[in-house]
Amino acid sequence: MTPPWTPLALRLETPAVLVDQTRLDANLRHMQGKAQTQGVALRPHAKSHKSGQIARLQLAAGAVGLTVATVEEACAFLAAGVPSVTMAYPQPQVARLERCMALAAAKAAELLFVVDGLLVLTALAEAAAKHPCPALTDGDSRWGVFLKVDVGLGRCGVAPESGVLVELARAVSRCAGLRFAGILSHAGHAYAAGDAQGVRAIAGDEILKMALARMRLQDAGFHPPVVSVGATPTALAAESFAGVQEIRPGNYIFLDLQAVRLGLATLDDPALWVVATVVSRNWKYCILDAGSKTLSSDAGPHGLALAPSPDEDAPRHGLAFPLHPESPGDAEGYPIVKLSEEHAFMVHHGIGPRVGEKVRILPAHACSVTNLTEHLTVAFPDGRLESWPVLARPGRPAAAPPAI
Amino acid sequence: MTPPWTPLALRLETPAVLVDQTRLDANLRHMQGKAQTQGVALRPHAKSHKSGQIARLQLAAGAVGLTVATVEEACAFLAAGVPSVTMAYPQPQVARLERCMALAAAKAAELLFVVDGLLVLTALAEAAAKHPCPALTDGDSRWGVFLKVDVGLGRCGVAPESGVLVELARAVSRCAGLRFAGILSHAGHAYAAGDAQGVRAIAGDEILKMALARMRLQDAGFHPPVVSVGATPTALAAESFAGVQEIRPGNYIFLDLQAVRLGLATLDDPALWVVATVVSRNWKYCILDAGSKTLSSDAGPHGLALAPSPDEDAPRHGLAFPLHPESPGDAEGYPIVKLSEEHAFMVHHGIGPRVGEKVRILPAHACSVTNLTEHLTVAFPDGRLESWPVLARPGRPAAAPPAI
Repeated sequence: MTPPWTPLALRLETPAVLVDQTRLDANLRHMQGKAQTQGVALRPHAKSHKSGQIARLQLAAGAVGLTVATVEEACAFLAAGVPSVTMAYPQPQVARLERCMALAAAKAAELLFVVDGLLVLTALAEAAAKHPCPALTDGDSRWGVFLKVDVGLGRCGVAPESGVLVELARAVSRCAGLRFAGILSHAGHAYAAGDAQGVRAIAGDEILKMALARMRLQDAGFHPPVVSVGATPTALAAESFAGVQEIRPGNYIFLDLQAVRLGLATLDDPALWVVATVVSRNWKYCILDAGSKTLSSDAGPHGLALAPSPDEDAPRHGLAFPLHPESPGDAEGYPIVKLSEEHAFMVHHGIGPRVGEKVRILPAHACSVTNLTEHLTVAFPDGRLESWPVLARPGRPAAAPPAI
Repeated sequence: MTPPWTPLALRLETPAVLVDQTRLDANLRHMQGKAQTQGVALRPHAKSHKSGQIARLQLAAGAVGLTVATVEEACAFLAAGVPSVTMAYPQPQVARLERCMALAAAKAAELLFVVDGLLVLTALAEAAAKHPCPALTDGDSRWGVFLKVDVGLGRCGVAPESGVLVELARAVSRCAGLRFAGILSHAGHAYAAGDAQGVRAIAGDEILKMALARMRLQDAGFHPPVVSVGATPTALAAESFAGVQEIRPGNYIFLDLQAVRLGLATLDDPALWVVATVVSRNWKYCILDAGSKTLSSDAGPHGLALAPSPDEDAPRHGLAFPLHPESPGDAEGYPIVKLSEEHAFMVHHGIGPRVGEKVRILPAHACSVTNLTEHLTVAFPDGRLESWPVLARPGRPAAAPPAI
């Protein structure tokens, strides 16, 4: 279906990252509704949008707070007034922890951390000793700590059956400034599941593994901890969140080619598109003005390209649709198979758009696209455009140079 | 060899993009020296660094101007006072061309464009009609136009043997505000050549193809056009630039894992490193705090990963070295095989650094790393650190919203 913002996009300078406000709103309401129906809290991952405007919409719709990955993201959203933030990343740098804590204390905001080992916990305890937590509405003045559980991605986290789990929970409880808040997982390997059924199996497996971890902690004498799970595919595919108290999807707000490939969304759902112009055309490719510096080189999250295909013409980096569809093939979309820094290689199959014409690209991974632009261009159904700044971009100058 | 800035890097907050000033200077002098010895002009591609400081160093050492890919880059470097800029990207958007031309005219700077088809030329002529070129030192007040020749990358450009080449040159000459400046190529496919000998063969082939294009234009009555070629591998590998007047390498200023893999540099040459911290460690991987949002997901330029290996433990996204080497394996480096947005998966081979320890990463593609950071942290041999801002990041807000 041709999106209603097509006439507007035809007049944009490119490349432009365009967000369809109607779809954004639909995606936001769908996930919030699912959380409410299932009786779980929604704490969206803000790394997908890095937008103060979108964070406000999520909180107004009922989100309990935000999830972030970096210190920059934590500080940006705390500064913007978000009342509760989980930094779902083990952070062993004391100075970086102190910066977040100082800001959260100044804002009287809740800040939750994750640990998956004693060295990270030691750093957190050291920072907490210097920066007391504000007294929150529940009266607790200790920083919240989640234990990260690895449910299959093989990245951070403790195995649910490992003895380290209970040992770490005990160690958290012994730290004066910290309180044990719960257990937290990310089933990012769901992006490699192939289809919705495969994702559903991983979502079920995650819930079982987290139930095991929770039971072991209860058996060791802990109050039943909060179970927080999160990944857009599992949140979309799961039929039940029995035993889960909180979900933390991020990408759901935009969706992208991965969600469509997994059968978790249709082409009418994604809210984020890259508008690009054909700048050259050769025997095989239309060359577009949106390369790896606009679309990113991601073929999917966590380096997990879905169904690695021997077909060199598979839409590895995106699927492009002419804004002015003319030939029957235009509705199918044209695969973006290769990227230079500022050029996309789009296979035109002998038809497709001419030089100077515009296309809209569904990127492989929306979160990486947001990170690459200074602003999102948001298209409202009444034909209005707004520019929403992207916050928390990395690589600030080094603090006062430490001379050797 | 452990770099001299190691003690300093041990105290940096991570992830940080660190530039070794001594090596930057050596790389700059090596390429400028080669250009001078061979009697060709050096016009570095600024997309690799996007830095006003580095541009000034290149011009001071003898570069004749800069090459850029985007309108944002052109405007940033024109505004910074660079006297001559080639925008080596076919641009069919008239409004974007006009913006560059207005700025170049205000700065009395030379601005050169590329075309590879009539539609792009028409856009350029339309913009030129509204924005006359400043009278340059040679008295010519027409905007310079290069014809882009495809020498094998299969991206933009006209085949050297194609009839379109002469036709386009004639069309340029018929445009009142434009002057035919020369022919321009980019042998980016050299990144897939496998080794230095393969790169040398591609460099030789490029020179032959450009000589053919030049001869055909001469035979058609044109004054012998300037031949401009450019890619770091070919510029490093070529033994002679006979028949070439200008080279446009970009990556040479930093170098990266691609140059080392191709045998065009050693591990003692690269000037750009990402300093990261181990945040978690599991049975196979050290997890580092530098993911695709710091290193980019590039496995090499133009989507051309070198020697696609069946070895899943190949250093696809970078090679990491502990800042505190302890075990014999530490000197070999540890491969970064997979990336999440904020996490790198580094294979530790049962040894390698502990949680909280720092590593320096040689990235697969330095140009993409620069694009992802707000600042470069530059380490001088005297132990000084400077923060150099990265210019021309993409995705400015849309100009005055065009209501439908």
